[in-house]
Amino acid sequence: MLIFFDHIGVLVFAISGMLVAGEENLDLLGGYIIAFITALGGGTVRDLLLNTEVAWMSSLSHIAMVLIGGTIGLLFRDKLKKLRRTFFIFDTLGISLFTILGVQKGLTYDQVPITALFLGMISATFGGVLRDVLCNQVPLIFRKEIYAIPCLVGGAIYLSGTYFGFDKTLWLLLLSMSFITIIRTLAVKYGWRMPLIKEL
Amino acid sequence: MLIFFDHIGVLVFAISGMLVAGEENLDLLGGYIIAFITALGGGTVRDLLLNTEVAWMSSLSHIAMVLIGGTIGLLFRDKLKKLRRTFFIFDTLGISLFTILGVQKGLTYDQVPITALFLGMISATFGGVLRDVLCNQVPLIFRKEIYAIPCLVGGAIYLSGTYFGFDKTLWLLLLSMSFITIIRTLAVKYGWRMPLIKEL
Amino acid sequence: MLIFFDHIGVLVFAISGMLVAGEENLDLLGGYIIAFITALGGGTVRDLLLNTEVAWMSSLSHIAMVLIGGTIGLLFRDKLKKLRRTFFIFDTLGISLFTILGVQKGLTYDQVPITALFLGMISATFGGVLRDVLCNQVPLIFRKEIYAIPCLVGGAIYLSGTYFGFDKTLWLLLLSMSFITIIRTLAVKYGWRMPLIKEL
Repeated sequence: MLIFFDHIGVLVFAISGMLVAGEENLDLLGGYIIAFITALGGGTVRDLLLNTEVAWMSSLSHIAMVLIGGTIGLLFRDKLKKLRRTFFIFDTLGISLFTILGVQKGLTYDQVPITALFLGMISATFGGVLRDVLCNQVPLIFRKEIYAIPCLVGGAIYLSGTYFGFDKTLWLLLLSMSFITIIRTLAVKYGWRMPLIKEL
Repeated sequence: MLIFFDHIGVLVFAISGMLVAGEENLDLLGGYIIAFITALGGGTVRDLLLNTEVAWMSSLSHIAMVLIGGTIGLLFRDKLKKLRRTFFIFDTLGISLFTILGVQKGLTYDQVPITALFLGMISATFGGVLRDVLCNQVPLIFRKEIYAIPCLVGGAIYLSGTYFGFDKTLWLLLLSMSFITIIRTLAVKYGWRMPLIKEL
Repeated sequence: MLIFFDHIGVLVFAISGMLVAGEENLDLLGGYIIAFITALGGGTVRDLLLNTEVAWMSSLSHIAMVLIGGTIGLLFRDKLKKLRRTFFIFDTLGISLFTILGVQKGLTYDQVPITALFLGMISATFGGVLRDVLCNQVPLIFRKEIYAIPCLVGGAIYLSGTYFGFDKTLWLLLLSMSFITIIRTLAVKYGWRMPLIKEL
């Protein structure tokens, strides 16, 4: 079940990478590279920081999901724009799972809780950061979207749960993922955003 | 004493990261992320290159300094602009210490001297490089400021000292740090800058 | 012989880094840093992903080639523009060798074939990607040049050869490198390029 959503997350991120690459007028290969980095870049940064093996490198199924996602993004660009809602749901499930898996991996590697929390946020968001940097834009999450905050809140809930001995229970996973999903959905629905530094 | 300046360096770099983020019109979270990367990004690149544990990940006090520095940068933006001189002194002490600590760490990990020197420069300057790349600018140190040259000179003095057996003496540390501080101060005072490639 | 071309590749990449830095109006130090990253950045990313020692850090001869290449790029900027053809030949030999060495290193570290192929492409092209990102441009290989495709084809030929037991034969190396060289030369001669995503 987790593995299913993990792969769906990669697929959806790869699709969104290809869509952004199309808007930036990149070529076909650039599109697939951006799809790859959007989908697997966050986990790559997490694993580099943990000084451990980069997970996707030995996972053919993750690489396959990138290629499939990139191709879907390429072929169905116009139709996908009408499926915004479906797309949003899977994207949100993807980031919520990536966050918790990142936090878990941090804990597995004996990191202090706040570092594990950062690793969760990095897993979920830095693929998008790298995508934006490569497309020569200031990363979206630094200036527009409430994207990382739900990850931090959900990750913190997960961490609190492990502190009380509920780690690796499905309940804790579902609870923290639900928080991320709900907060992000509300944020997009009601247009919540972080205040700009200038406004403070 | 060293640990004190190390933390002050992180604090000052975090403040400057938040100030730049404010000018780039980022939001609150973007500000803290840029503060984090400005302060700890150079050391992160150094540790990734050394294929070792990333130092800040297990150091709560460094993470705390980033959060405090970011908050100071946020709350006292206007006042800080009047304290340019104080700010400059701590910034210069910060880079001089980061340089020497980077060189030392390189030597500890059995790197050849020139690589250790590069690691010192990377420790001191790549946080700023990453900050500029994320804010979608050509890094400042590539085009305007004499920033890396004092680091290279001071690092070279430190390396010469270790060659003659003075490594880990406080004298050598102070001497090489003083060189960095003095050269940089003179450079800013008299407007020294590197020639542009075009001018050569 | 391989080592000779490897060093020539680094030299040529460093020259091209300095030339690009000059066009971007960087200063002298920025020029050398860009030369360094253009020449050795691809291999650095490869080695970070492999979670192993970064090769250039213990290789004085590679560091020397960067410094020499950067200086050549600086002193002979105008003359080099007339030597486009010679320059192109060495550049192409450089990327073809970097590709195969990257694939080989991936296999040595027990990566699956497709990951080894990606590592070959990364070795040959990501120095240029990092150069473009630091110079605040969308990477050239994402939008204009047929650059990575010959690497992928040549790398695939090499991988097929190893599958049939010809690994570490000089013949296989020359065959796959020739493919990269020939395809790239034809691509530039006849103006082949990848279709843009928009055109599909």
